[in-house]
Amino acid sequence: MVLTHYHRLVLPADANHHGTLYAGSLLRLALEAGYAAAWRHVGTRANLVLRRVLNVECLRPVPVGAVVEIQGAVLHRAQAYLVTGLLGVPLAEGQGPWLEALLGFAQVDEAGRADALPEGAGPAEVPEGEAWRRLAERLQKLLHLR
Amino acid sequence: MVLTHYHRLVLPADANHHGTLYAGSLLRLALEAGYAAAWRHVGTRANLVLRRVLNVECLRPVPVGAVVEIQGAVLHRAQAYLVTGLLGVPLAEGQGPWLEALLGFAQVDEAGRADALPEGAGPAEVPEGEAWRRLAERLQKLLHLR
Amino acid sequence: MVLTHYHRLVLPADANHHGTLYAGSLLRLALEAGYAAAWRHVGTRANLVLRRVLNVECLRPVPVGAVVEIQGAVLHRAQAYLVTGLLGVPLAEGQGPWLEALLGFAQVDEAGRADALPEGAGPAEVPEGEAWRRLAERLQKLLHLR
Amino acid sequence: MVLTHYHRLVLPADANHHGTLYAGSLLRLALEAGYAAAWRHVGTRANLVLRRVLNVECLRPVPVGAVVEIQGAVLHRAQAYLVTGLLGVPLAEGQGPWLEALLGFAQVDEAGRADALPEGAGPAEVPEGEAWRRLAERLQKLLHLR
Amino acid sequence: MVLTHYHRLVLPADANHHGTLYAGSLLRLALEAGYAAAWRHVGTRANLVLRRVLNVECLRPVPVGAVVEIQGAVLHRAQAYLVTGLLGVPLAEGQGPWLEALLGFAQVDEAGRADALPEGAGPAEVPEGEAWRRLAERLQKLLHLR
Amino acid sequence: MVLTHYHRLVLPADANHHGTLYAGSLLRLALEAGYAAAWRHVGTRANLVLRRVLNVECLRPVPVGAVVEIQGAVLHRAQAYLVTGLLGVPLAEGQGPWLEALLGFAQVDEAGRADALPEGAGPAEVPEGEAWRRLAERLQKLLHLR
Repeated sequence: MVLTHYHRLVLPADANHHGTLYAGSLLRLALEAGYAAAWRHVGTRANLVLRRVLNVECLRPVPVGAVVEIQGAVLHRAQAYLVTGLLGVPLAEGQGPWLEALLGFAQVDEAGRADALPEGAGPAEVPEGEAWRRLAERLQKLLHLR
Repeated sequence: MVLTHYHRLVLPADANHHGTLYAGSLLRLALEAGYAAAWRHVGTRANLVLRRVLNVECLRPVPVGAVVEIQGAVLHRAQAYLVTGLLGVPLAEGQGPWLEALLGFAQVDEAGRADALPEGAGPAEVPEGEAWRRLAERLQKLLHLR
Repeated sequence: MVLTHYHRLVLPADANHHGTLYAGSLLRLALEAGYAAAWRHVGTRANLVLRRVLNVECLRPVPVGAVVEIQGAVLHRAQAYLVTGLLGVPLAEGQGPWLEALLGFAQVDEAGRADALPEGAGPAEVPEGEAWRRLAERLQKLLHLR
Repeated sequence: MVLTHYHRLVLPADANHHGTLYAGSLLRLALEAGYAAAWRHVGTRANLVLRRVLNVECLRPVPVGAVVEIQGAVLHRAQAYLVTGLLGVPLAEGQGPWLEALLGFAQVDEAGRADALPEGAGPAEVPEGEAWRRLAERLQKLLHLR
Repeated sequence: MVLTHYHRLVLPADANHHGTLYAGSLLRLALEAGYAAAWRHVGTRANLVLRRVLNVECLRPVPVGAVVEIQGAVLHRAQAYLVTGLLGVPLAEGQGPWLEALLGFAQVDEAGRADALPEGAGPAEVPEGEAWRRLAERLQKLLHLR
Repeated sequence: MVLTHYHRLVLPADANHHGTLYAGSLLRLALEAGYAAAWRHVGTRANLVLRRVLNVECLRPVPVGAVVEIQGAVLHRAQAYLVTGLLGVPLAEGQGPWLEALLGFAQVDEAGRADALPEGAGPAEVPEGEAWRRLAERLQKLLHLR
């Protein structure tokens, strides 16, 4: 299965004074969803640290009380590094995602040095759908920029 | 799909002074995993509150740094109430689950009164495997007790 | 003294989107109140870990701004294990408790193995009152079930 | 009963990098213990806000894993204001308190303005013992200073 | 530069049930602002622990959504100890500070014992302005009291 | 003054299981430092929300117990949008920054719609120094990419 699913009820403790998801909470949720996707991809020998945020787009405010779903997939894979793409599943019909994100994780050894991903970790694969295609295109541009 | 999957990295902020998952954090993780399973089952019209903990078994200490996976499934369904079963996927080969739990959620209306589950919500279904079978049996005993 | 008293102001950080105590916070409060009752019972040589939740009943929503009181007492005691009963003191006159809970704690040694409770720890004793009597009866049924 | 008792297990989440209770956590614990003492004194019609910290003494580091007990008592009472004294019960035999504190709370009405304490609230009373006597003396000096 | 500046958006997670900054959060913010001021004063060899709160005055409620600024300065310096003064910059024109505080920090060595402040740490200096002058006067009285 | 300074003691509650700053905490710290820089730039009429993370580089692990300093400056300013640059001040002599970040904030009105920045908000200005020059160059590339 390519996609992982992350669910969370947005609580007042996660909110800003507008009653919507506070950016500091949003970034933490995105990180947890990104880790979960990367772990499922790499397997039990994963030892991953966040190396880079390539992009986060906060596209729509998320009200307190919403149950958000973030879908994740590994969109890029190098020897010791991978990039997880994230999409916040639309909060209402006819809307686009409320979140798009690209997070880069490095595999490290016990001492914290870069290490090759374990053998079981498969290749990257872009899920179907227009939103995933656009996210993957943005990633290609960003990978070539740096 | 019957099963939901919940992943979390156990951090020092989640730990007790033994360097393992603190029970206060464990209960919160179990609740989040239980909610996620119930929501996926009921669909977007879910408005669920925890009504009861029927059982939580803390079977093995979970070390900081572990990436835990909690599997969830709806094991019982009444008109306005459902029970989510949870299993903490073994931390090492040959071990059993580190967590077993049975959480009862009620569907409520805007005013917080019990309400019928929406039509889309399917029947309960016990996933395959010995651990799930035992958990479902315990649930039956507990449902008849009260 | 048999009873312990635990007080907490319910803050917005503890709330769900209905403006009442979130179940994840409620479970943590119940655990802290249960630990406090067990510690006072066992004395300074207590080294307790949560082994099991036998039952939690969430009987009434608790509004933000309320100062809750949870009473605790050790209702069952074995050689290396005890069960704490908890009652959430009614929020208004004429109401019953908003919380009932039965939490099982094990005494452990340095290595985390089950260990006998220290000598000073007295026998279990059920406090007076109808609510405590019913909670103790439920405990007896649950102890015989497993 | 004059004295209230507040218990908490000190967790890694409460610690500084020395493995002892972080001052930011200590102040929050002291505040919760002080509120609890003031509430029990004033009764269910209490609507108290912290108005002033007259003194906090951090006398000994508290290691992670300790179960701290903070005793509280109302040492001073005016018409719309009271001062709670707190003592951290010694962590080992032969030691003095690890914490001494004096916190001033004001009773407020719905609009947040100072309001008379309700009738049920009794007079202040200094508990017995040398440590309480010294704390009460310090309070007298501080009350006359401002 | 004598003054340090600490900024924070007040979030619902920091609030009490009146929708204003909860005292437990306020004390933590004051501590962080006090540490920051002390660190900038002492330099990279600072190893400071909170020894004492000499005074905190909560002068005005702070609404959720406000961006608070706390100014800090070292007002007193002994060989192994210093006192940080804090002022909460007025929330509206024509108002006074919402917070005044005096926090005493001790320099400690690796083992947690009192230690001389490193050489780079300069003398205390009272910033200009009526509010700072009054805070410094209160400090003098409190230093002579104990 | 172009630069803002943000200080924080890294606590065990902020750590991962390697004893270094957890990425979820790092992102929150970066956001708070970015907000503080943007607020000081825009003034008291600021009503800013995070719109986008253009880039975060986690360049070196930060040990628990370190007092981190994050410098911030507004590097780009449009009519209703600005980008804050952040540099984590080197943890040891001879090292480079441990953090580089570019965060985009939008000014919004009461209803959450994009709004022009208030008149007092000055132009963007790149602080002196090689690290800031490189960060500003990266920003230019990223602004032209999208």
